[in-house]
Amino acid sequence: MVESVPTVAEYMKSKLGIEAALPFDTITVQFPKKTVITKEGAIEQYVYFLRSGIAEVGMVYEGQRRIIEFFTAGQFFSAYTSFLTRKGSDVYVEAITDCVAEAVSYKDLSQAYKTSLSANQLGRYLNESVYLQRIKKEKDILVKTAEVRYHEMMNNRPELIQQLPVAKIAQYLGIHPESLSRIRKIQHF
Amino acid sequence: MVESVPTVAEYMKSKLGIEAALPFDTITVQFPKKTVITKEGAIEQYVYFLRSGIAEVGMVYEGQRRIIEFFTAGQFFSAYTSFLTRKGSDVYVEAITDCVAEAVSYKDLSQAYKTSLSANQLGRYLNESVYLQRIKKEKDILVKTAEVRYHEMMNNRPELIQQLPVAKIAQYLGIHPESLSRIRKIQHF
Repeated sequence: MVESVPTVAEYMKSKLGIEAALPFDTITVQFPKKTVITKEGAIEQYVYFLRSGIAEVGMVYEGQRRIIEFFTAGQFFSAYTSFLTRKGSDVYVEAITDCVAEAVSYKDLSQAYKTSLSANQLGRYLNESVYLQRIKKEKDILVKTAEVRYHEMMNNRPELIQQLPVAKIAQYLGIHPESLSRIRKIQHF
Repeated sequence: MVESVPTVAEYMKSKLGIEAALPFDTITVQFPKKTVITKEGAIEQYVYFLRSGIAEVGMVYEGQRRIIEFFTAGQFFSAYTSFLTRKGSDVYVEAITDCVAEAVSYKDLSQAYKTSLSANQLGRYLNESVYLQRIKKEKDILVKTAEVRYHEMMNNRPELIQQLPVAKIAQYLGIHPESLSRIRKIQHF
């Protein structure tokens, strides 16, 4: 599975047409299922590029878990607000399944940003991508019902529907698992 | 008022320590109050840096207006998803008050991104900023009541509370104007 997903260097070449060597070091890391990669309160030290598996970023508020995003192979993930602001994270990052990722450290990335055109092109592009992801979800929550968002998830990210327990999908959609079960029944008949 | 707000070049210097000349042209534009700067459906051609006034980005859904963000002097704004994806915009951009802005065109910015380190550093930084804005609002909506978000708005962006009609603040908080009036009364006594 890892072999079919590009490396960060290949991603930079395919998305931005940059042929140069990667302007920072990456290390390959393995996280067994259920590993808490970044704890709430910790200062995030890495941005990860997922090569296989599923990771989640979420918050626990008044005992309830809210999942902000699921990440699959070929996506970047991080407790990115903490990474950028150098403050303790208000979200956790967790491996839902066994995960393999390439990690870039804050130190190496900020160093590369000082002088490297390609590092800044890649960083700019990645920030555009994560911006687009967030504003899309924000608009979806404003104007779409959980049912519509579930059906879009089935169409656009079927691997999540297949692999994740109902409870997690409900935490992502912001509804009770029972409501999601009703939506799924309507879907099937 | 315009004189007290930095230009894009000054912003680049103060936020990123870049002394170089601005790597793209900007034009100064004036929008009288209530100007629709970008219509829903149009492809956004500019990113604007606001030098004075207040602008809003929002959507109209089933006849109801939802305001995604208010922008004040010193902030960048745009129908930015459309600007990045080159697809018709699902949001409008409007001048709430008379506005003066510096505008950068898509053509000039993409040209600068091809070769200029400082353009990419600025673009990366701006994308980080808009990402942080959006993920903060997303988390706030997940875990904070409209009342808490209103009080935070009073503390962090008092100029908006002073200058905007109640209806607009309610459209931003996602509540009925009557509910906002109740919150404001509790606040005052």
